[in-house]
Amino acid sequence: MIKAGIIGSTGYAGAELVRILLNHPEVTISWYGSRSYIDEKYASIYGNMFELVSDVCKGDDISALADEVDVIFTATPQGFLAGVLTEEILSKVKVVDLSADYRIKDVATYEKWYGIEHKSPQFIEEAVYGLCEINREDVKKARLVANPGCYTTCSILTAYPLVKEGLIDPATLIVDAKSGTSGAGRGAKVNNLFCEVNENIKAYGVASHRHTPEIEEQLGYACGKEVVINFTPHLVPMNRGILATEYASLVKKEGGSLPSAEEIQAVYEKYYGGEKFVRVLGANKCPETKWVEGSNYVDIGFKIDERTGRIIMMGALDNIVKGAAGQAVQNMNLLFGFDEALGLNLVPMFP
Amino acid sequence: MIKAGIIGSTGYAGAELVRILLNHPEVTISWYGSRSYIDEKYASIYGNMFELVSDVCKGDDISALADEVDVIFTATPQGFLAGVLTEEILSKVKVVDLSADYRIKDVATYEKWYGIEHKSPQFIEEAVYGLCEINREDVKKARLVANPGCYTTCSILTAYPLVKEGLIDPATLIVDAKSGTSGAGRGAKVNNLFCEVNENIKAYGVASHRHTPEIEEQLGYACGKEVVINFTPHLVPMNRGILATEYASLVKKEGGSLPSAEEIQAVYEKYYGGEKFVRVLGANKCPETKWVEGSNYVDIGFKIDERTGRIIMMGALDNIVKGAAGQAVQNMNLLFGFDEALGLNLVPMFP
Amino acid sequence: MIKAGIIGSTGYAGAELVRILLNHPEVTISWYGSRSYIDEKYASIYGNMFELVSDVCKGDDISALADEVDVIFTATPQGFLAGVLTEEILSKVKVVDLSADYRIKDVATYEKWYGIEHKSPQFIEEAVYGLCEINREDVKKARLVANPGCYTTCSILTAYPLVKEGLIDPATLIVDAKSGTSGAGRGAKVNNLFCEVNENIKAYGVASHRHTPEIEEQLGYACGKEVVINFTPHLVPMNRGILATEYASLVKKEGGSLPSAEEIQAVYEKYYGGEKFVRVLGANKCPETKWVEGSNYVDIGFKIDERTGRIIMMGALDNIVKGAAGQAVQNMNLLFGFDEALGLNLVPMFP
Amino acid sequence: MIKAGIIGSTGYAGAELVRILLNHPEVTISWYGSRSYIDEKYASIYGNMFELVSDVCKGDDISALADEVDVIFTATPQGFLAGVLTEEILSKVKVVDLSADYRIKDVATYEKWYGIEHKSPQFIEEAVYGLCEINREDVKKARLVANPGCYTTCSILTAYPLVKEGLIDPATLIVDAKSGTSGAGRGAKVNNLFCEVNENIKAYGVASHRHTPEIEEQLGYACGKEVVINFTPHLVPMNRGILATEYASLVKKEGGSLPSAEEIQAVYEKYYGGEKFVRVLGANKCPETKWVEGSNYVDIGFKIDERTGRIIMMGALDNIVKGAAGQAVQNMNLLFGFDEALGLNLVPMFP
Repeated sequence: MIKAGIIGSTGYAGAELVRILLNHPEVTISWYGSRSYIDEKYASIYGNMFELVSDVCKGDDISALADEVDVIFTATPQGFLAGVLTEEILSKVKVVDLSADYRIKDVATYEKWYGIEHKSPQFIEEAVYGLCEINREDVKKARLVANPGCYTTCSILTAYPLVKEGLIDPATLIVDAKSGTSGAGRGAKVNNLFCEVNENIKAYGVASHRHTPEIEEQLGYACGKEVVINFTPHLVPMNRGILATEYASLVKKEGGSLPSAEEIQAVYEKYYGGEKFVRVLGANKCPETKWVEGSNYVDIGFKIDERTGRIIMMGALDNIVKGAAGQAVQNMNLLFGFDEALGLNLVPMFP
Repeated sequence: MIKAGIIGSTGYAGAELVRILLNHPEVTISWYGSRSYIDEKYASIYGNMFELVSDVCKGDDISALADEVDVIFTATPQGFLAGVLTEEILSKVKVVDLSADYRIKDVATYEKWYGIEHKSPQFIEEAVYGLCEINREDVKKARLVANPGCYTTCSILTAYPLVKEGLIDPATLIVDAKSGTSGAGRGAKVNNLFCEVNENIKAYGVASHRHTPEIEEQLGYACGKEVVINFTPHLVPMNRGILATEYASLVKKEGGSLPSAEEIQAVYEKYYGGEKFVRVLGANKCPETKWVEGSNYVDIGFKIDERTGRIIMMGALDNIVKGAAGQAVQNMNLLFGFDEALGLNLVPMFP
Repeated sequence: MIKAGIIGSTGYAGAELVRILLNHPEVTISWYGSRSYIDEKYASIYGNMFELVSDVCKGDDISALADEVDVIFTATPQGFLAGVLTEEILSKVKVVDLSADYRIKDVATYEKWYGIEHKSPQFIEEAVYGLCEINREDVKKARLVANPGCYTTCSILTAYPLVKEGLIDPATLIVDAKSGTSGAGRGAKVNNLFCEVNENIKAYGVASHRHTPEIEEQLGYACGKEVVINFTPHLVPMNRGILATEYASLVKKEGGSLPSAEEIQAVYEKYYGGEKFVRVLGANKCPETKWVEGSNYVDIGFKIDERTGRIIMMGALDNIVKGAAGQAVQNMNLLFGFDEALGLNLVPMFP
Repeated sequence: MIKAGIIGSTGYAGAELVRILLNHPEVTISWYGSRSYIDEKYASIYGNMFELVSDVCKGDDISALADEVDVIFTATPQGFLAGVLTEEILSKVKVVDLSADYRIKDVATYEKWYGIEHKSPQFIEEAVYGLCEINREDVKKARLVANPGCYTTCSILTAYPLVKEGLIDPATLIVDAKSGTSGAGRGAKVNNLFCEVNENIKAYGVASHRHTPEIEEQLGYACGKEVVINFTPHLVPMNRGILATEYASLVKKEGGSLPSAEEIQAVYEKYYGGEKFVRVLGANKCPETKWVEGSNYVDIGFKIDERTGRIIMMGALDNIVKGAAGQAVQNMNLLFGFDEALGLNLVPMFP
């Protein structure tokens, strides 16, 4: 039994960590951090936790916290962890960071896209990018895990095998992503009011969203060269879920024909056939966000368009489970040698 | 480890039984019954079950099923179970019926409100009304459990302690209930299309809904006299959840004063203080359906109005968990001597 | 052609005034007031007005405004108009107040329920309660119209004829009301975020909502005696619409029988038969908020329950049209001698 | 004053025609056709029309109808009009067809994508593709107008000026479109039930949707060569609205630089500057479907991505107004010499 502390436990991702960890057989949450609600009962902020959590919220003193727990989750704004992390902390506890602070290896890229100075670049090299299906072995040995972003997890996993195996031309990759509104967080903003989001869809952050370089970096590792893509997020009137619709030109085989659906399927199976949390629906199947709601699954389907020579890849996940808290717990399981799926046997909820 | 069969596994309540039982440590589902989808893969009907359920659907031959399993759940239209149940079946397996066939003790009342003849009234007497918090001991000894309706569970539990203790006048009881659309089932009807339900609210079945006599009968047992109420269901543009707002005149104490909030609270605590699945929020608290979504909880709050002498009681639950499948599993646990909460440690999902 | 000024034009009710008045053949809007967005283009705040409104927002200097226009609409927080209204202003322009400042004749009642001091009680007597169907003739002669609240309009009109004619006992009246989220305004509050409202329903302001005394006062005028009711508002995950479900005991006729549906229908027809904006659906009909969306209609249906001796009355309207801006325009039409329906031939939008 | 008949008046597009035409000063609807609801009151099928429409539904005998009216709208399934249209009918009345029967000039293409035989190919040549902003003059002289599809109108208008002027490479064009659920029609199908659509997003018809060849044909005319694109529709949990997010490589100018935002803007203005119903939001602006809800507007914005050399174009419209009924009325206005915007001054409704 290990003890966990959550800094930022009253945001949506933090609250989802609580939901998942409450049923994790090897973890006790002993610190509910929340700068905004310090000394208030956690269950007064999240009514669903009435009689399930009796704790009051504590602050974000990560040094004090490091003395009390075995693992710290930071579900905090960009820059927070980079501003407070020290070698001493890392010597005491494992840290799973749900913010972007250590996701991007090139500090200049981070500072450009996030518009803030990175306060502790010395830990970037050490941090392991926690996309378990790709970096599993490195995560196991890490002290600091950079938990991937929600759009990023979905976008990368959907295209990764085909990029890695050279079946598509990365220069043609376009990711058109759609997200539920929980991705916007629990901040009180007019743009996220019910009446503004409901009965509405829009793109935002076009050609400028911060998850872009994260996707590009990881796919670049996969194919061994720089990748530059278009990534367009959209806000959808639903609470949870991300759907990434990805377009790329297939690389023709010798003789000029396109890869077949069976060949594409085989490549997906090669990478994900043994992965519990990636479900390859296969050719001509369209994943739906509702089929993964509340669970840690990523569902992937694809369609080859002979007319244009492109493949349309589609991936769906729950943005606050596999896209945040679920993946963080999956990383924690790896860090502590637990079964990777422990506490994550969440059956998707329908309807 | 016991084996369970579900007749009607492709309706919403049946599918929720699957979701819950897949994580139940003492149960294996060995029969996915569905008259409409016989021989089709269950996961092709419910995409969320991809790689989780590999079975194909079977028919509704309850006699054959009774030879294979330990417990049968019937999530079927009214009249189905009454038409096929036999003493032989009951001698072999336990049956938890999610339909209304055995909920109402007076067969004439059943036939009047449901408009169909009851084909096996000989089992009505034996059937135990499976509202666990009230009939726990009887359920443990039963062969046949009549699992309560969704509106009914919410309406009864919200008012029960005050009716039982004589704090409110049952003749003044009005239940104004609001339900998510999953309560209407998965049938393809124009009225339940997205565009008809979304951005809309309406009452239906006013003064004629079939759950009315079920509420009246159970509350009548509580106070020892006939109860006649107004019950008005409403259709709300959301998937899950029932909220019951209930009005009744408080019975004045000697001296003419109303009971205090503390006295009301104490009565709720008397009945539900030890109940895991009933959470008494208390005075001046308004439960929200979202706080119980996906879980087996009922949340109850109340407000005394000194101006009118009435109390407003409010109860919220998830209509397909505590209002159907969750309660059915709770009953199954009682039937087989498992911990009553086994497999039901579902933390409400928010958002 | 008259000129109109709107103070508070960037709230939802103010914006709906703009939507309606843009198509009104006798009105030009010449002042878009908004304390928060002063000097910003109106169309930058409400993107739907791109190329339709080129004005920038002005402040809330009502005295300056009174020199420029013929009619002022105040869609402002409680207390604003009461704090700035003067005889001089009223001598120059007509004022239609969408706030509650002059709705309640008894200043003590106002101050108790609203928790603020009334700064200009001298105008309360003069102000006409602008429920056109009831106070039409008084509105025509007014300088100051107190435009009714959204819940109030729906609750009163639904019960008014039966209260007025003594067919129901006002002491038994219970109003269970459900509102879309636009009623909560455009303020940035966590409670009104998409993720908090969506997939959720809850009661609020139980036995304490500010529209209660307004309903009680008007129904009291109808029956000539004090009326005290229960009024319970609920928040529904939809943008627009109010449904009021109202319960009351029918007064028995001599001989002890209940009034018939035909008799009830006749009374509704007596009051509303000639009213364009009240549509009496009749017995056993349940109005739906979607059937009036975007329009100025109130739809009313009812059901007699012989078992309990009660009638269930149901009314539906669009809270920001007939419940706010549409009714304000209807009042303006009366004030200026226009056809009462001018600019209000809005066909409900479905779906 | 002209008389109009609607065949298929009880589908969503037909009902929207009714909503719009009821306020059209030059049109009376004299035939509400509906095969499913013949002899039923129209207002009993669409409750919003209570007291607004007193007619009962008639059948789909187009020959009889042609003797009674001046214009016929067919909002019917594919193949209906092609099966019944005759020269005699066209000699008597104007026909605006909201189905796809005469949209595609190449009958083989039609038969391939729609999977049905075309029964009256002799009228295809004559039919004018009713995208008013592009084919205005031809529409004025037509007898038969092929009203464009909803996805098509949005997709074409968003890209048209840039394709026409050679600023983008049509071979790189990808249209990722998102639609509200009314686009799926009012048929009772499980896939369109509230609980299946709500809280969900999915692609469908990937690389096979029937609107694809219609977009390709029209854009082909614009650039004078064959165009083959990827078009991916998605189902969004909202009633109305289409958003098309379109990607294409910009054609570099001499010297190798990309066109500037100002140059792109100028091209949009060249084509749409004088168009009432196309609102060019401009560079770096993202249209939202809610900003056009209930209106005949198309809103267009764009973003240039210097990193990839692509432009992201975004267009939004209301699928049953500009995408169906509104555009049909716009075409009717042209056919009869009315002001093109007559009856279409619909201010978008927000929220």
